[in-house]
Amino acid sequence: MSTNHAPRPGAEKLDDEQLDLAHRLATQLRVDSIRCSTQAGSGHPTSSLSAADLMSVLLLHHMRYEWSNPGLGSNDHLIFSKGHASPLLYSIYRSVGVLDEDELVNTYRKFGSRLQGHPMPILPWVDVATGSLGQGLPDAVGVALAGKYLDKLPYQTWVLCGDSEMAEGSMWEAIDKAAYYKLGNLTAIVDVNRLGQNGPTELQWEMEKYAQRVEAFGARAVVIDGHDLAAIDSALAEARSNPDQPTVVLARTIKAKGVPEIEDMEGWHGKALPKDMAQRAIAALGGVTDLSITTASPVKSAPQAQAAPSAPVKLPRWDIGEEVATRVAFGAAISALAVRPEVVVLDGEVGNSTHAGDFKDACPERFFEMFIAEQQLIASAIGLSVRGYIPFASSFAAFLVARPYDFIRMAGASEANIRLVGTHAGVEIGQDGPSQMALEDIAAMRAIHTSTVLYPGDAPSTTALVASMADTDGVVYLRATRGAYPVIYGPDERFPIGGCKVHGAGPEDKVALIGAGVTLHKCLAAADELAQAGIPARVIDLYSIKPLDRATLLETCRAVGNRLVVVEDHYPHGGIGGAVMEALADADVGELHVALLGVSGLPSSGQPSELLDAAGISARHIGAAARKIVKA
Amino acid sequence: MSTNHAPRPGAEKLDDEQLDLAHRLATQLRVDSIRCSTQAGSGHPTSSLSAADLMSVLLLHHMRYEWSNPGLGSNDHLIFSKGHASPLLYSIYRSVGVLDEDELVNTYRKFGSRLQGHPMPILPWVDVATGSLGQGLPDAVGVALAGKYLDKLPYQTWVLCGDSEMAEGSMWEAIDKAAYYKLGNLTAIVDVNRLGQNGPTELQWEMEKYAQRVEAFGARAVVIDGHDLAAIDSALAEARSNPDQPTVVLARTIKAKGVPEIEDMEGWHGKALPKDMAQRAIAALGGVTDLSITTASPVKSAPQAQAAPSAPVKLPRWDIGEEVATRVAFGAAISALAVRPEVVVLDGEVGNSTHAGDFKDACPERFFEMFIAEQQLIASAIGLSVRGYIPFASSFAAFLVARPYDFIRMAGASEANIRLVGTHAGVEIGQDGPSQMALEDIAAMRAIHTSTVLYPGDAPSTTALVASMADTDGVVYLRATRGAYPVIYGPDERFPIGGCKVHGAGPEDKVALIGAGVTLHKCLAAADELAQAGIPARVIDLYSIKPLDRATLLETCRAVGNRLVVVEDHYPHGGIGGAVMEALADADVGELHVALLGVSGLPSSGQPSELLDAAGISARHIGAAARKIVKA
Repeated sequence: MSTNHAPRPGAEKLDDEQLDLAHRLATQLRVDSIRCSTQAGSGHPTSSLSAADLMSVLLLHHMRYEWSNPGLGSNDHLIFSKGHASPLLYSIYRSVGVLDEDELVNTYRKFGSRLQGHPMPILPWVDVATGSLGQGLPDAVGVALAGKYLDKLPYQTWVLCGDSEMAEGSMWEAIDKAAYYKLGNLTAIVDVNRLGQNGPTELQWEMEKYAQRVEAFGARAVVIDGHDLAAIDSALAEARSNPDQPTVVLARTIKAKGVPEIEDMEGWHGKALPKDMAQRAIAALGGVTDLSITTASPVKSAPQAQAAPSAPVKLPRWDIGEEVATRVAFGAAISALAVRPEVVVLDGEVGNSTHAGDFKDACPERFFEMFIAEQQLIASAIGLSVRGYIPFASSFAAFLVARPYDFIRMAGASEANIRLVGTHAGVEIGQDGPSQMALEDIAAMRAIHTSTVLYPGDAPSTTALVASMADTDGVVYLRATRGAYPVIYGPDERFPIGGCKVHGAGPEDKVALIGAGVTLHKCLAAADELAQAGIPARVIDLYSIKPLDRATLLETCRAVGNRLVVVEDHYPHGGIGGAVMEALADADVGELHVALLGVSGLPSSGQPSELLDAAGISARHIGAAARKIVKA
Repeated sequence: MSTNHAPRPGAEKLDDEQLDLAHRLATQLRVDSIRCSTQAGSGHPTSSLSAADLMSVLLLHHMRYEWSNPGLGSNDHLIFSKGHASPLLYSIYRSVGVLDEDELVNTYRKFGSRLQGHPMPILPWVDVATGSLGQGLPDAVGVALAGKYLDKLPYQTWVLCGDSEMAEGSMWEAIDKAAYYKLGNLTAIVDVNRLGQNGPTELQWEMEKYAQRVEAFGARAVVIDGHDLAAIDSALAEARSNPDQPTVVLARTIKAKGVPEIEDMEGWHGKALPKDMAQRAIAALGGVTDLSITTASPVKSAPQAQAAPSAPVKLPRWDIGEEVATRVAFGAAISALAVRPEVVVLDGEVGNSTHAGDFKDACPERFFEMFIAEQQLIASAIGLSVRGYIPFASSFAAFLVARPYDFIRMAGASEANIRLVGTHAGVEIGQDGPSQMALEDIAAMRAIHTSTVLYPGDAPSTTALVASMADTDGVVYLRATRGAYPVIYGPDERFPIGGCKVHGAGPEDKVALIGAGVTLHKCLAAADELAQAGIPARVIDLYSIKPLDRATLLETCRAVGNRLVVVEDHYPHGGIGGAVMEALADADVGELHVALLGVSGLPSSGQPSELLDAAGISARHIGAAARKIVKA
């Protein structure tokens, strides 16, 4: 790199020299975006070219970032919500000197490279994986929430958005919550290049319509020509100047800007330029350059956010036999965890039912109400995890898992650390009916990369597992039950993740009944009834569904002649039964005799006991299944 | 019922007598809402009371519905997006004479009753299951799309929405698409009662903010006092009068209106009135009444939509050995199905990649672009299915399944008939990286009530299965692959849903390799390689994952000594391996020796062959797993 230009952050306008530099940087970003994608033979150069001017001015005059220290707490954040513009992002990294030319040009999109098709946090300057559109801005709301309310650091969160993704409802959940929480430290820059993958976007260049929407949702809209460097500069300065309102810069741009033969032309989304076209384009742009720039330093006076020392956590205790809903135990446990300064709780406007709201009383400053916007609920958790917090997001299990499932999927891809507690799972909820019953959440959550899936059956196990969740990486999900059931375990019992509990094991056991959550209680009842009928049975409390205690499972198989009844308040596909069977695929324990009991058909409203029985998962059905296996 | 009042539909204003009737009807709806919920001991009377005046005027003066014939094509539609206000809906049904008092008062929320906690289509007047907020309005957009563009019938689609659910991004996707498609036949009535479950809503009674948002999203906003009967009447008349713009009536209401002691009071969401309070309230409202009303008849001149006769479907044919991507085969097959007048195709702005866009050329009038709004994509399909169409919704599998998963879940609860085609599944997509890779879609889709899950490996099987999907009820999902692979089957081969294909079976087979989609090809390659090494192996093409051909699976187990290798381009939890193991739980075939190969860890960018190998699911890994099992 040949030149090093000192940045001039702040509100003063760019002079001619600076404008020239910005132009040269933008040109280099364009050239590099073309180079790496043409070399890879795939990627999105045209979507990078439209935003190059925006990013050039941002870098030179507004972004405050110490590139040698990406973990610095007072660094700004830059999130590419339009993750497909990764050539531009990686070209930025080259321009600030953290990526060398060879890696950029020769490894992009190649196997083994850090420079993947869409940005991944394997790169230390990338906060979150993007590429599923409509997620980067919601995630950034979480980062900005942390900045304003928890870190209390003056960093700005900049987000480059595409125009196509403005059709995702999640973007409006994000703008709404950003405005509600007065996140002046959040700036979205929308690259309105008029063309989506498949043709013109819905609003094309109707900038005023975008602006109306943004303003109606409570943010400040600034409409500019996204290739006018001075206008970009003013807009970004304005964006940072208002501490209490997020800004959405709506930049009218031209897709493929800088390569006239394909500018604003359909059919060039997601296509690398052919080599000859790339050569022509690069030559016309002035060829390869080695401009090296430095962004402004983060505000020096800003202290690093310091974790306050945690007081000892005093978990709630319960008496054996007491009837307590596991959601109540969750509320009590999470409130006890409030002494840990990293713990944050997010609610989807059902905190009085989930008992997440109990935390609000204990620690209102670390409780955030997301209202009924579950995608933003998860995205906020992801953003908070970027800043090192321990977020617990909670709602009814049906809504917590299914509504934002794509956000949970991407949290897995980000390898973000988020904790999810879904209450009111299964037919056990009773009268509200199937719309409120999570019956597919275990299958869905098991399939998430990095996931842990927990389903405790009583208050002490819930309490212990909620405490463990705080220190467990990845996407950690706990399923809780609506109704109150007896406490089974003493207050000092331990519940390691990946473990299970065996009840009533004896040398003559003919069958093992495996349940979790509400079905644990049904298994215990069935075992009592079987014992009275002369069929000794043990019960496994499979509170940790993923990871699953395979060693104990195999030992159990051997002890009971491989006769198992697995019972779950969940559809019988991919849930607890699936988890058990997958663990036994190559078990080498002999022939299996396993009955899988799950919810059959579409449940209705009714009393929990009626619904559990109608679903085929009550003690009566468990007993019958066990008898059939034992007789066979 | 004692009185029968003739309706007076249309634009003329309500006179004093009619206003009095509307008031009396509203009062009865309130009394009945209280009665049934108090009798049930649960439910949402306060959320019903706020909307009683709105519904009374709608019924008496605007809704056109022949209650004795709910299947009548020209009937209006009434969807309760705020499904928790079911007491109000069921009270309406009583007032129009289709539900008797005993069923209403004594069965609500009870086991075995049609009157579930949230409305279910088991009731012939209910189009879709609601209860997961933010879905009824999106579904209604699909109904209105059908009315305007396909049925061409003058019915209006009325939707009662809650104010809390306006925080869901999906509501804005819906309003946006309603405006984009000029759905003047859609009217949303938002019951802005200021209080959610947990306290005040985000916007409380800021009616102008709601109006700004609605107008910015392209719909007409009409703000009224939701208890002013004349104002309601004017607003609803205005709503129906504009053929080319949807209307959102924003009604400022009071939660629990009519029961002064709890009006506008927190802490009464989702709570039945205690018996004594209910008695007081009913007495103050004038007691139980038996008002019976009749809504206006649908426009007589409107013809029933007639299905045009279908021309014979001529499916595309392919030559064995030709390399064709299954997504290409999907595009060709769906285009061939365009001769069937019920078939409609919906795209999420990736139609050029999924090949759903091929249908647009064949049949532009039944192709709807939903842009990047996958929740609305699925909701539109659900709404179209209400009107008897055969909707195919398509996007990349990662976005098609994960983003709108809660809508798919509710499609299952509705027992709606929708067809989903997800392309670009698995690590096989290559360079774009994990954000674009569906790796949990099979697990998620298997767990959906009514679901069918298909994953063909070549063009003819894809073609045949796409044709079968059109005539398969429930939520039918087909997973397609990005890359081109050789055609395996002849053009006349049949692929029944619930079947599979066995390749290369011989009496000496030592192991069966089970794959689907891309892994079918890897299994075939591995079998060739094993054969050369003296290990005869058969291959099962498990193109139908749910339902699964258990008979052939068991027969295979017996033939190969229960030695199976199951391989999937999906995470190894709840996918094809899970499906196979669940089917073998009580198989009675002897000890199993099954290797489950799925994607391990987080994939990256790269070439498909590199990624399949790195994920542990290439022919090399399949061969190694088979050898290990055979040796053991």
